[in-house]
Amino acid sequence: MSDSAPIILKAIGMIRSPYSQSSEVPVQARFSRDVQAFARLYPRYVPGLKDLDGFSHAILLFYFNRSTREDVTSCSYLDSEEHGIFAIRSPHRPNHIGLSVVKINRIEGSDLYFYGADMLDNTPLLDIKPYIPDLDQEEIVERGWLEKHYKRGIMIKNQIPQKLR
Amino acid sequence: MSDSAPIILKAIGMIRSPYSQSSEVPVQARFSRDVQAFARLYPRYVPGLKDLDGFSHAILLFYFNRSTREDVTSCSYLDSEEHGIFAIRSPHRPNHIGLSVVKINRIEGSDLYFYGADMLDNTPLLDIKPYIPDLDQEEIVERGWLEKHYKRGIMIKNQIPQKLR
Repeated sequence: MSDSAPIILKAIGMIRSPYSQSSEVPVQARFSRDVQAFARLYPRYVPGLKDLDGFSHAILLFYFNRSTREDVTSCSYLDSEEHGIFAIRSPHRPNHIGLSVVKINRIEGSDLYFYGADMLDNTPLLDIKPYIPDLDQEEIVERGWLEKHYKRGIMIKNQIPQKLR
Repeated sequence: MSDSAPIILKAIGMIRSPYSQSSEVPVQARFSRDVQAFARLYPRYVPGLKDLDGFSHAILLFYFNRSTREDVTSCSYLDSEEHGIFAIRSPHRPNHIGLSVVKINRIEGSDLYFYGADMLDNTPLLDIKPYIPDLDQEEIVERGWLEKHYKRGIMIKNQIPQKLR
């Protein structure tokens, strides 16, 4: 496969959230029970939700379809240093894939209700994976350029703004 | 966006691993230091690696390009029950996106060396994200249909075979 061979995906559904623009996404309460968001799957993918409700968390992969550019380096909102795009969670990245770990509320028909929405309304959904601690959870980690912000007390657990993503 | 509108991505590089077929991927030692694997980025994306080496872990998103089908439900290798594809980590899934949390070893030029490879050699890389505990780590989780296998002692931390993914 060469650098230029296209990889063609399609939305499996759409994420509906209360946020119509980035500035509305709250910086707090990542798993707030007040925020009702859901992913509505297209009919052919609905059987794929079977047994997902036994898991407390899921990983949503989605498409940052509102981004109009691809940066290779960028500043985060936290500092004025330029970081590689693969060291930050900016939406303006090659391939525009977003990733969020969310807490599952319930599944109703084609709809997966969840807490932890930081996606804009009408964001195309690409995949859902069960969150499996043995695969997805690392206990001893280093946090790179973010470390100094933690030390300054700017980063508070579960209070990271969406722009970081 | 309708169900059918294509989303066009491209590889940002290739993952090189010692595994040329699924059966070779070891079920143990997810972060074994003996396994040398790396992601080699295409030249235009190399500046995107800046500052990633400060993080101990990264999330790799890649394309299961060897899969020739898309299931909506499937059995895992662990049991004979049919689960929704979004409740298992099978490669034979809509959009064929793979996700692995890996431990960063070092970055040399265009190459990100890492531990925790469970991808086949020459797998197209779609994205790299820094692993950030506040976003990616959940401490209290329920593991759905996997729970009974944990109870039977089949699942051992860091010993989950690649076929589950």
